[in-house]
Amino acid sequence: MTRPDRYRSTGDGEHMKAEVLAVGTELLMGQIANTNAQYISSRLPDVGIGVYFHDVVGDNPERLKQSFLLAMSRSDVIILTGGLGPTQDDITKEIVSEVLGRRLLLDRESLDRIEEFFRRRNRMMTQNNIKQAYFPEGCTIIRNDNGTAPGCIIEENGKTIVILPGPPSEMKPMFEETVMPYLAAKSEYRLESVYLRVFGIGESSVEDALLDLIDGQTNPTIATYAKDGEVTLRITARHPKNGSGTDLIRPVADEIKRRFGDAVYSDDDRSLEEVVAGLLMEKKKTISLAESCTGGLLAARLTDIPGISSVFDRAAVTYSNRAKMEELGVRKETLERYGAVSEQTAKEMALGIRKVSGTDLGVSVTGIAGPGGGTADKPVGLVYTALAHKDGVIVKRLDLWGDRAKIRNMTCLHVFDMIRRCLISMEG
Amino acid sequence: MTRPDRYRSTGDGEHMKAEVLAVGTELLMGQIANTNAQYISSRLPDVGIGVYFHDVVGDNPERLKQSFLLAMSRSDVIILTGGLGPTQDDITKEIVSEVLGRRLLLDRESLDRIEEFFRRRNRMMTQNNIKQAYFPEGCTIIRNDNGTAPGCIIEENGKTIVILPGPPSEMKPMFEETVMPYLAAKSEYRLESVYLRVFGIGESSVEDALLDLIDGQTNPTIATYAKDGEVTLRITARHPKNGSGTDLIRPVADEIKRRFGDAVYSDDDRSLEEVVAGLLMEKKKTISLAESCTGGLLAARLTDIPGISSVFDRAAVTYSNRAKMEELGVRKETLERYGAVSEQTAKEMALGIRKVSGTDLGVSVTGIAGPGGGTADKPVGLVYTALAHKDGVIVKRLDLWGDRAKIRNMTCLHVFDMIRRCLISMEG
Repeated sequence: MTRPDRYRSTGDGEHMKAEVLAVGTELLMGQIANTNAQYISSRLPDVGIGVYFHDVVGDNPERLKQSFLLAMSRSDVIILTGGLGPTQDDITKEIVSEVLGRRLLLDRESLDRIEEFFRRRNRMMTQNNIKQAYFPEGCTIIRNDNGTAPGCIIEENGKTIVILPGPPSEMKPMFEETVMPYLAAKSEYRLESVYLRVFGIGESSVEDALLDLIDGQTNPTIATYAKDGEVTLRITARHPKNGSGTDLIRPVADEIKRRFGDAVYSDDDRSLEEVVAGLLMEKKKTISLAESCTGGLLAARLTDIPGISSVFDRAAVTYSNRAKMEELGVRKETLERYGAVSEQTAKEMALGIRKVSGTDLGVSVTGIAGPGGGTADKPVGLVYTALAHKDGVIVKRLDLWGDRAKIRNMTCLHVFDMIRRCLISMEG
Repeated sequence: MTRPDRYRSTGDGEHMKAEVLAVGTELLMGQIANTNAQYISSRLPDVGIGVYFHDVVGDNPERLKQSFLLAMSRSDVIILTGGLGPTQDDITKEIVSEVLGRRLLLDRESLDRIEEFFRRRNRMMTQNNIKQAYFPEGCTIIRNDNGTAPGCIIEENGKTIVILPGPPSEMKPMFEETVMPYLAAKSEYRLESVYLRVFGIGESSVEDALLDLIDGQTNPTIATYAKDGEVTLRITARHPKNGSGTDLIRPVADEIKRRFGDAVYSDDDRSLEEVVAGLLMEKKKTISLAESCTGGLLAARLTDIPGISSVFDRAAVTYSNRAKMEELGVRKETLERYGAVSEQTAKEMALGIRKVSGTDLGVSVTGIAGPGGGTADKPVGLVYTALAHKDGVIVKRLDLWGDRAKIRNMTCLHVFDMIRRCLISMEG
């Protein structure tokens, strides 16, 4: 649920409206997701600009022209991505120039840089790359240090048009280094957001518990977003360029934290595994993992975090029963009597990995991720997880649903939350 | 590079045009990418429908109305995603009904199913969920087995309007089970695509080597798309509903495979790990992994594939030197003399995991994923990987670049490709 547009009702005139228009048939064929629009949208609020529309069109002159005209009619800032390549299908600058009635002129410096780009890589520049050095008359050129397609910024009747290349590795640095400062100078307002992340409470319950806050607010606004068992609450304040939104946001954030207690696991948009890694490092507790149905996913997520090697010792991904016995010392009798997916096996796995690794915490998972392997007694989605520490072992049963990927992901979230809650209660 | 619109130039009238309109402020805030549009776009060509536009609007009645009217004016099939939740901000059905002049009517069966959904999960249904059982008069309701928001299909003046919930885990099954068959029955044409996936050759080299084919073709068309060391070639043929595109595609696919040899790792859009898993199962070879810098990512990716338990035995994620010695039998002298990131350590890790697990293949990775831990001698991005089999051990040095996530991902691709090449040469 989102209550998004409230703060805008005070007067759209004060608030610059942006639109992101992506050009590229590969987007319409579903080969890639429009992550550029996501990235740009996540950044513009920092300079007080709200994004009102995303559009995607293919490499087709007439449709691009229509979409661009529409964007010009309804938005203050139009950011186009893609269609700056060297081929005939790359038409973004050409169409924008045509619509605005500007000539395309050769920029000598850009051409030099493109030639240099090829020279440095010992590659031949083809004739068609010259096209990439032509720009609409009167624009500001945005250098591209990571590719051959420079971008540009055009001012036209109070509207700002930004043209950027499609590859994210080229687009992002150009956006950060040139476009963000350029737009920051134009905008009178800033949006400041705080993200509270909640695990273990459903979105509708979160909303129910906050209805009075949500209904009562215009600045800051509160929005919820749910994904796979997690709910993210966004609190956004609008404030003048030289002010701060903190005083507006803090009381609301504090009240929400009061209501949900330690179900709020982060207030700085960190993920559950980042919070767990942070707690491990802060409390100087080492950890080892014994994974069955998650097959290394817990370890992969934890080791995605830089610096984790100071607290993470090892993980044993034990798919076979033999591996569970050999690596973790799970008893044959336990496996035979209770099965690999059982409270007892989870417990022995956690105790086992803690013992062999000598870490403070030993964490285990065993379950049925599906699609095969389920029975009436032990259906797909049944998962046991255990956490062994110096004073004993905690075991939890999870009853999850969904496809293999969802069950594995939900398992990771539950396990990380269990570790987090255990670490909170431990002394450093 | 894409040569996208060619086959459409034969006459747009023959070809149904679709537009994907996503509703949700979380998309405009950049909290998520519009992966629904990507998914839907990748599927529609299979039923002969081309996607011409994506749009995203927030949960704002006026802007949604304008975007929907625009979509109705230019597209034959309009697929809306999102805005079907229980809250006041969820307005998709309401706005569509208003624009089309249809009443919203309660569907008793949907309400029963929503109530049942809550009962099964031992959760209370809140009053606002009732809203999710109201639908525009005269529509076909699409059941949602994974959530509380059913979708619907509306026929209006020769246009088809499809409304689906936003969460991908709900949207996808509904799209596959109901929407695809429904649209397939309406469309006269089919687009058939074959995807050739190539590892180890850069995109510009791929394109260079195929320029004659790409320039010469209108049906099928050839497009390339590059991502992190992989290049995907899409060959797309358009053909009448009752015909086939295979005869058009096959000679082109064969010629491309001839030119790139075994760098083409799949011709059915399977990922590198799916190909590896397939080869392991087909040749009945078991595998175990010893991971350091990938931290479980290799195992996580491999175990994401259903049925892998028949060939995958275990993985040891050995971050510490002690774990490398204890779990894999890496010698202390090796670690001291050559370091953890070395050809020698990689070799001993692979031999060690193969020995303890008794699998046909033992695969290891050790490297520096960064951002910390690099030195002049051993920079971030230096990775060694080894593969032990019954006749010996292969070791490879990789010199990668990019951030931690990219280095870990590129490492996985290189390792899977090494395993693939080894398996191809082995007898079953």
